[in-house]
Amino acid sequence: MAELVRTGISLERKLLEMFDRAILKKGYKNRSEAIRDLVRDYAVAEDVAEDRPVVGTLTMVYDHHRPGLSERLIRAQHHAHGQVLAATHVHLDHRNCLEVVIMKGRSSELRHTADQILSLRGVKHGKLVFTTQGTGLD
Amino acid sequence: MAELVRTGISLERKLLEMFDRAILKKGYKNRSEAIRDLVRDYAVAEDVAEDRPVVGTLTMVYDHHRPGLSERLIRAQHHAHGQVLAATHVHLDHRNCLEVVIMKGRSSELRHTADQILSLRGVKHGKLVFTTQGTGLD
Amino acid sequence: MAELVRTGISLERKLLEMFDRAILKKGYKNRSEAIRDLVRDYAVAEDVAEDRPVVGTLTMVYDHHRPGLSERLIRAQHHAHGQVLAATHVHLDHRNCLEVVIMKGRSSELRHTADQILSLRGVKHGKLVFTTQGTGLD
Amino acid sequence: MAELVRTGISLERKLLEMFDRAILKKGYKNRSEAIRDLVRDYAVAEDVAEDRPVVGTLTMVYDHHRPGLSERLIRAQHHAHGQVLAATHVHLDHRNCLEVVIMKGRSSELRHTADQILSLRGVKHGKLVFTTQGTGLD
Repeated sequence: MAELVRTGISLERKLLEMFDRAILKKGYKNRSEAIRDLVRDYAVAEDVAEDRPVVGTLTMVYDHHRPGLSERLIRAQHHAHGQVLAATHVHLDHRNCLEVVIMKGRSSELRHTADQILSLRGVKHGKLVFTTQGTGLD
Repeated sequence: MAELVRTGISLERKLLEMFDRAILKKGYKNRSEAIRDLVRDYAVAEDVAEDRPVVGTLTMVYDHHRPGLSERLIRAQHHAHGQVLAATHVHLDHRNCLEVVIMKGRSSELRHTADQILSLRGVKHGKLVFTTQGTGLD
Repeated sequence: MAELVRTGISLERKLLEMFDRAILKKGYKNRSEAIRDLVRDYAVAEDVAEDRPVVGTLTMVYDHHRPGLSERLIRAQHHAHGQVLAATHVHLDHRNCLEVVIMKGRSSELRHTADQILSLRGVKHGKLVFTTQGTGLD
Repeated sequence: MAELVRTGISLERKLLEMFDRAILKKGYKNRSEAIRDLVRDYAVAEDVAEDRPVVGTLTMVYDHHRPGLSERLIRAQHHAHGQVLAATHVHLDHRNCLEVVIMKGRSSELRHTADQILSLRGVKHGKLVFTTQGTGLD
């Protein structure tokens, strides 16, 4: 298990009560876990800003009737082969596919790969999000 | 094929030159596709704001050594069974797992499910993004 | 002075070290203040999500040579007169003006006012941000 | 007047109808202006990503009873004197002040100044947004 340490913070009573009500609604069982999540989110944002290795998930919707698009998508993913960990494909309806590509690398590199994919004709919409590789948060 | 229509816009020459340079770098082959993507992104944001049915991808990193967490994650996904389309699992290292859950539903419902999952102890970080179900953009 | 309370959190040592390095760079003198800021930011996001009264700042750039625009901007602000607290005007160059409008109200109302202003022809760009009215964070 | 050029785009009929409905609600009088605003927003995001000169507005709420804070805020703004164009102050209530600082400079520099200010004790909340200096969008 990762080594845990304790730290204390002082804050305004009304602010804390408001926070407690808000996290309860979101499903948190205790305040410590909720604050920990805020700290982790800050740490991930910092990893992205400093261009450290992160995990990125690219979600996109595309039209699989578009001639040549599937090949171009596969080529783009292979071109970035050191980055792509996995891809999941869901058939939304008879023409629309959802694909989620999970990648690992520096945020700038993952952003570049995502730009190349999202700019392909027939890719209708997409979003890239970053999360941690996990180890930094141990 | 979806029916295409043409529309014209007038804009400042310097702005258009700047836009052309920027989209070229991102990989766009032509201006029409790049503007279409901006319009689609606007339409998706509107779907989310109006709480219409969308697709949501929840990316999260969790510690699979945490006792009982895998069960709780599966239970939360089954509880939202009308929403979950697929889930992909990647082993990041000996203790960290990445899981991507693809869901379908109104943005408020997907957000609620994501909140319940992300507030679980042992889930280190997560992000929910929305995209289109595709049909609206045909 | 607002009443202060103390709370403790436990978190992973490596995460805490990473957080400490990141906040030091941003200028924080101590960890408690940095965590407090994360909690406040969460509380403000919650106020916005729940459509509670907040403060909104609308920053926009417009072309003051556009005939009739100044009148339309003033009219829009007066129309929202219960909301607007102050407006600051900066002359960026011979044709571009920056205007910052500070408003008070529910986030949905402020968003509506901002939409009406930003959609005016001649308003080149704009952004609306929300912050607290202060009392909730005492 | 800035020189205007025309460009045409083709897009799916259903997407265009959805866009037209959405922009009408926001107050747009015509489609061309709405698309122009999307292009400008993209151009500003690009300016920020490329660290070009932009305008930044820092909105913050602080407790003016905090000893020494006003002096530290003024010092921080003078330290960044090449950047600060104007500051507006609004008294929210007996203890909370809202201050909006309008700055000009590269996005990285403005972010640094904002970090130094927002990390001061007594500054409860703040947000920095970027917009254009205007000329690029002529």
